[in-house]
Amino acid sequence: MFGFIPKNNNFFEFFDRAANNILSGARVLEELLQNPGDAGEKSKIIKDIEHVGDTITHETMKTLNKTFVTPIDREDIHSLICALDDVMDAIDEVADKFYRYKFKTTSEAAQKMAAILLKCAEETVRAATGLEKMDATINHICIEINSLENEADRISNDAIAKLFENEKDPIELIKWKELYEHLEDAADGFEDVANIMEGILVKHA
Amino acid sequence: MFGFIPKNNNFFEFFDRAANNILSGARVLEELLQNPGDAGEKSKIIKDIEHVGDTITHETMKTLNKTFVTPIDREDIHSLICALDDVMDAIDEVADKFYRYKFKTTSEAAQKMAAILLKCAEETVRAATGLEKMDATINHICIEINSLENEADRISNDAIAKLFENEKDPIELIKWKELYEHLEDAADGFEDVANIMEGILVKHA
Amino acid sequence: MFGFIPKNNNFFEFFDRAANNILSGARVLEELLQNPGDAGEKSKIIKDIEHVGDTITHETMKTLNKTFVTPIDREDIHSLICALDDVMDAIDEVADKFYRYKFKTTSEAAQKMAAILLKCAEETVRAATGLEKMDATINHICIEINSLENEADRISNDAIAKLFENEKDPIELIKWKELYEHLEDAADGFEDVANIMEGILVKHA
Repeated sequence: MFGFIPKNNNFFEFFDRAANNILSGARVLEELLQNPGDAGEKSKIIKDIEHVGDTITHETMKTLNKTFVTPIDREDIHSLICALDDVMDAIDEVADKFYRYKFKTTSEAAQKMAAILLKCAEETVRAATGLEKMDATINHICIEINSLENEADRISNDAIAKLFENEKDPIELIKWKELYEHLEDAADGFEDVANIMEGILVKHA
Repeated sequence: MFGFIPKNNNFFEFFDRAANNILSGARVLEELLQNPGDAGEKSKIIKDIEHVGDTITHETMKTLNKTFVTPIDREDIHSLICALDDVMDAIDEVADKFYRYKFKTTSEAAQKMAAILLKCAEETVRAATGLEKMDATINHICIEINSLENEADRISNDAIAKLFENEKDPIELIKWKELYEHLEDAADGFEDVANIMEGILVKHA
Repeated sequence: MFGFIPKNNNFFEFFDRAANNILSGARVLEELLQNPGDAGEKSKIIKDIEHVGDTITHETMKTLNKTFVTPIDREDIHSLICALDDVMDAIDEVADKFYRYKFKTTSEAAQKMAAILLKCAEETVRAATGLEKMDATINHICIEINSLENEADRISNDAIAKLFENEKDPIELIKWKELYEHLEDAADGFEDVANIMEGILVKHA
């Protein structure tokens, strides 16, 4: 009889899967920026991971549309899954640009930023895990993600300032500047996810 | 006596008018990118359409402030009308840049993207029409807009990658890159509108 | 006994402090763009002001997490304080880029835009003050901020179009274009704050 009542708690599973999927993508991106020679293959893997993310997003939406009682507000489920999807898109965008623009080398700054994105992804997985229990440590994770985003911002700003000083070929400057900006977009995306999780926690405090 | 009670259902009319206004703008933009010679005149027409959009937005806000019972949450009316306004602004931005930067020619990629924006506008009109009845087909329309946005993204990324390969004049490269990015912004705007509509539907499922 | 019940009305004080902090930052930015020689010192002052903003944001979040009954929806407090934080970040970004990119001169357009940001900051302080009383004049302030943002947009677009006509050094063009875009981002941030305040008012109409 209760078979007709959809389980109302598997949304946290979707968040978990989306966060872990992002973590997979962030790992491959970090490798890609260590070994730019494999950019073609690695960017294809990241594209596949991004498609898995799309499937998770669509499944979440379909489940949401069939579920009567949700464990947290419907609109928050929607916002969070969209924000997680945006992060995955941003990671894919970095890999895609790196491959399409035919970067032959990488840079210390880009590698550092990829390492920060990986840390952000790990923290996001932790936060997603804590969300079901409305664990107050999420606040600390969010502060951590915020400070990682600030660090990414600093590295990107420094790297771009150096480009303006040293890079005499404007087209190369544009390419590298855009790479840093896309890496920064991904960091911003993690901050948005953190803000939404913080917002959900705030509602249930 | 009941004359004092404001009608509560004309917000859907505002959404409809805003969506149809965007459709008008998207049509002129498509023509502009077919015949760049008329850019001055066409961009002026789009600016006028954008001003009509502003009026619709302000009227919606004024009505919202005077209305006691709204058919959907007040904040969703606000978000949706703001998102529709943003799309119209983005279309105007493309036309304005095209005229101001004195593009002499157009490109196949820009034309394809304008055609996608036109399709997005048509789908948005359909979704706006379905919103009053909380029509479940809105979900399909949203998926369609999502896939149109992905297509726009692909075209834009390909076109920009080609610029980096072939365009030796950095200032020309910057101009064209920005044109594609603004076209892509408009496509993103349609996706935001779709997400908000999907979110409204989710609440009323 | 009532000592245990946290005061529920000091969130408006936080908004007020955040808005006044932005006003301080906008004032220094305006001076910086009048006298670019002091960019090093002035950008450091703005960075300090931005850190004060971070503290206000964190205090707000901590208070929100400890407060049971809030005067307006918890998520609106969260959105508004985040949007105010974003504006302060954007102002800091302008100053930081100006200093890092080693601009030797300023421009009339940049000065005009900084003056508009200062006006936006003044209006935001007024709106924050009116928010506690849900003062309907906030709507007028929001319309004013909207029209200031449109003006900033026009100035920025004109200035960038002139760059494409006159600036033959692509790297200089990129630098100035980015400066105008960051100034425009700050204006957009004020518009976001205004939209959120308008949204809060709409809920309580």
